[in-house]
Order: sequence, then C-alpha cells, then structure tokens
Amino acid sequence: MAERESTVPLLSPQAEELLKNLHGWTLSEGAKKISKEFTFKNFVEAMEFANRITLIAEAEGHHPDLHIGWGKVVVETSTHSVDGLSEKDFALAAKIDQLKRK
Amino acid sequence: MAERESTVPLLSPQAEELLKNLHGWTLSEGAKKISKEFTFKNFVEAMEFANRITLIAEAEGHHPDLHIGWGKVVVETSTHSVDGLSEKDFALAAKIDQLKRK
Repeated sequence: MAERESTVPLLSPQAEELLKNLHGWTLSEGAKKISKEFTFKNFVEAMEFANRITLIAEAEGHHPDLHIGWGKVVVETSTHSVDGLSEKDFALAAKIDQLKRK
Repeated sequence: MAERESTVPLLSPQAEELLKNLHGWTLSEGAKKISKEFTFKNFVEAMEFANRITLIAEAEGHHPDLHIGWGKVVVETSTHSVDGLSEKDFALAAKIDQLKRK
C-alpha cells in the first residue's frame, strides 16, 4: 500500500514541536531545514559516521546533505518535494541520533 | 629527512599559476581555498567517491572539507597552518582529479 506523500511543508510551530523529540538539532533557513553537528576524533571516524548515515538514508529513501571536515560531520536535512521540512526529516534525524549513541 | 613546512600561504598569482595544472578547480575566499564540484548518479556513488578521497587524504596527511548531497561532492581544500593555500592543496587536488578519471 503506497503511503500518501505530503505536498506541503510542516509549519514552523509543528516543526518546533517535533524538534523537542530530538537532541541538539536546530531549525535553519526559516524552518526549511534542520541540522546538527557531530564531532569525532579524526577525519576517518567522521567518514565512518557518514557511511553509517548513508545506509540509513538508503533504507529511508531520504538523503541529507553531509558537510564533513576534520573530526566533524554537519548533517542537514530538508524535503525537496515540499521545499521545506516534512516528517521524513524528523524520522531520519531520530535514526541518525540513535547511530551516534551506539 | 623531515621536509621543512612552509609558514606562509601561497600568494594569489602563485595560486593562479598552480591552478592551471588542475581541471575545473576554482579559487575562493580571496585565494584562501580551492574547490571543485563533482557529480554522480546518486547519493551512494557520491559517498563512494568521498571514501576514495579519504584514502588519499590519509596518505597525504592533508584533509579537505567534503560537502556531500544527492549526486554530488563539493571538495574544498586549504591549509590551516598557513591560513590559506599551500602546495599541499594543489597536490591533493591533482590526486583527486586522477580518481575521478579512473
């Protein structure tokens, strides 16, 4: 059974409510994106985290932008089809948070 | 024999001269960085390229910033110790270009 896709972005108060379930994510670009910085010991560990995010993104069918530098990964997610945030972004963010805790 | 580290960044004309040996890289932030966008079929192929860059970066002891999105990797490199560009950035860029041609 195909799930009906939302065609409108979440409103800012809805996004702020969903954000309360996450840890350390912030809204940016007028509530069009959420992002979080994760820190690591070095470049290789940052890339390992990016690879684990990739597996989740493929499984979810929803891909973030990853900004990787020495010892850090900044994850940004938004939903292109609604030009803003959807529940997919919050689901992805929650799964990425779980990764980091392992 | 330890190689003597440069303590000053390349001047803009020097950087522009070295840039001629590369393909599609551009100077940014007042000649403090060079960057290039590489495109791919999807997210996974972009990440595969990022992983191959990581192997080179580890071998060179010089790490770029990678901005990864659906089907693209933007590579940015600069040399922190000189607060600008050094020959290391051009050596890294040349090796990354070779990767993409394979």
